[in-house]
Amino acid sequence: MTAAQLSVTFFLQMFVILAVCRFVAFLARWIGQPQVVGEMIAGVLIGPSLFGLLFPEQQQRLFPAESLKILYVGAQVGVGLYMFLVGVQFRADLFQSRVRSAAAVSISGMLAPFTLGAGLAVWFVRIPGLFSQRATALEAVLFLGAAMAITAFPMLARIIYERGLTGTSLGTLALAAGAIDDAAAWCVLAIVLASFGGGATVAIQAIAGGVGYGVIVLTAGRVLLRRLGAAVDRAGKLTPSLLAVVLMLFMLAAWTTDAIGIHAVFGGFLLGVAMPRGLLTRELQRQLEPFTVVFLLPMFFTFSGLNTRLDLVNNPQMLLIALLVLIAACLGKGAACWAAARQLGSTLKFGTPSTAASARPPAIAAPIKPPASAALIKNSIGASLP
Amino acid sequence: MTAAQLSVTFFLQMFVILAVCRFVAFLARWIGQPQVVGEMIAGVLIGPSLFGLLFPEQQQRLFPAESLKILYVGAQVGVGLYMFLVGVQFRADLFQSRVRSAAAVSISGMLAPFTLGAGLAVWFVRIPGLFSQRATALEAVLFLGAAMAITAFPMLARIIYERGLTGTSLGTLALAAGAIDDAAAWCVLAIVLASFGGGATVAIQAIAGGVGYGVIVLTAGRVLLRRLGAAVDRAGKLTPSLLAVVLMLFMLAAWTTDAIGIHAVFGGFLLGVAMPRGLLTRELQRQLEPFTVVFLLPMFFTFSGLNTRLDLVNNPQMLLIALLVLIAACLGKGAACWAAARQLGSTLKFGTPSTAASARPPAIAAPIKPPASAALIKNSIGASLP
Repeated sequence: MTAAQLSVTFFLQMFVILAVCRFVAFLARWIGQPQVVGEMIAGVLIGPSLFGLLFPEQQQRLFPAESLKILYVGAQVGVGLYMFLVGVQFRADLFQSRVRSAAAVSISGMLAPFTLGAGLAVWFVRIPGLFSQRATALEAVLFLGAAMAITAFPMLARIIYERGLTGTSLGTLALAAGAIDDAAAWCVLAIVLASFGGGATVAIQAIAGGVGYGVIVLTAGRVLLRRLGAAVDRAGKLTPSLLAVVLMLFMLAAWTTDAIGIHAVFGGFLLGVAMPRGLLTRELQRQLEPFTVVFLLPMFFTFSGLNTRLDLVNNPQMLLIALLVLIAACLGKGAACWAAARQLGSTLKFGTPSTAASARPPAIAAPIKPPASAALIKNSIGASLP
Repeated sequence: MTAAQLSVTFFLQMFVILAVCRFVAFLARWIGQPQVVGEMIAGVLIGPSLFGLLFPEQQQRLFPAESLKILYVGAQVGVGLYMFLVGVQFRADLFQSRVRSAAAVSISGMLAPFTLGAGLAVWFVRIPGLFSQRATALEAVLFLGAAMAITAFPMLARIIYERGLTGTSLGTLALAAGAIDDAAAWCVLAIVLASFGGGATVAIQAIAGGVGYGVIVLTAGRVLLRRLGAAVDRAGKLTPSLLAVVLMLFMLAAWTTDAIGIHAVFGGFLLGVAMPRGLLTRELQRQLEPFTVVFLLPMFFTFSGLNTRLDLVNNPQMLLIALLVLIAACLGKGAACWAAARQLGSTLKFGTPSTAASARPPAIAAPIKPPASAALIKNSIGASLP
């Protein structure tokens, strides 16, 4: 396809994506589900699982393979920017007093689903056709374990935001636990990729690079960024030039973390956390949030669905496997985080009255629970798309 | 390249584009040139004409051919959205009282450069290698004429905005003339494409479709859009859902005009003009402008440069031809618009005191003048990029 054809197609794709997203999200909210769940379902509806099943030719014409790359890049920019904005609103002060809780929830939320996923993999690896011929049992165990342990960090963030939990103890704790989970799982995935033939460098780069990035951004980066905050205060507003500087820093952060193998989402989030609070962060949110949330983010959430092939789950055996993965994911994340939060229950002080009512342990487990399968889909895309 | 590789590359590209744009724009403003001129030069610097000439391998690695398609799509969305925002600020009331002036300036600003371009083409077509072997003399004449007559509408709009002329009589007149020019030139280009083998349908579709789109959007569209304005007034703000509706309408408008062959810029601008004035338009500007202007638009202005091959102007003959085209473009646009505005000088009433001083006829000629060569570059891309 020529660039001009791709661009015409893109305009139509985005119309369809935005329209279906809004419609399904409306239905989702109606039955009490978060809007973001609606957006993910919208992706499945316009992907090969429904639209493509009923009208394969039209679906191919609207979403030709080459155009998916453009949606992918747009989705990455969108989710990276969104997580940057989540980082900008992150209450580091609330987090510091609750490091122990965050670590406990995070570790339980990783270990339990990892163990369950690994256990399933030991069994699944014997089923022909489910894993690549080249995959060893160890690789299968590591892969399914990591995929189950991953928190779909952006999805978690959106649900927290939608439920009005941003800036509360509960929201901060869940976000921090999610961030730790996510970074750790990307590192495990890097190890899997390394064992698949990338060599040990891949894993070392991801782990050492990720730690290095985090330390630099949160120490030296934080100090340097104070000057940016001061410049905004002096100007009395976030001028286009200063916004350009922030976007340049974001691009650099996203590129660094993406290139070392731990995803732009992590780079964007930490850069946001390191931003000095005040006029700068308020203006960033005001100037970037509308377009990011309304236009770019639906690309990300529908993209998984656009690549989900529910039609592959076409016999009782596959259905059983899918159900088992789903149950294990819910149990692993849900039960483990709930137990950890309950254990630490007495040390959790929930700040605002409006959230106190929902601040029972299950409230922590809930937002961390659903995304495992979504993340699984997402990972497979990154590696498999031509 | 895989989608993941393209996305990593994109982050780095955007860092470089934003950084070089800001730097060159700073220098440009320093010598009194508009920022947008700096952005166009930035594109040439990081394209094959300088960066690629000095470090061909590194330039290829940073801007591989496939990645240019993604920048192209981003550039189209950016320029379309920008022209939508220009339309949103367009003062239809000022325009209505000056239709005659706008038409006169517009027609002079097209006929003169078209004649000059056509004259040059008669000569150029005899020089071997300059035009395709298949091109007849008539096609060459039509192509160069149209290319010279086109106003780089987005560039014009940005200069008007930067000089603080938005909302003034002068700015409105120049924008209206530019819009008419642009639509007309796209139609002439459609005729050229039709004669090149697309068949008459291409031309009919562009001309009839363009007129039809304009009429529908500015009549029925305007009436329907009032409901959207009322909904925003009721809500007291532009909610994410209502912003999504606007963006859907924009995507549909951009797709329609792009698909019929008169470019998304025109579709976006007219949709903006049709939007009901009030809270809706103020909020649209506030929510969409920062990201569009600071992030998306530099993609558009640098893209031309990224595809400009100044190294092809490598002998005295080519240099002479380039100079002739440049002089003809300046004379054609500049002198003709100046003369037309002067002729109508007495009927032009300039509203605000701040622009009264600069409201001599040359001020109209100036913003319409520079972009001819830029538009030429742009058109060639749309048709030639693989």
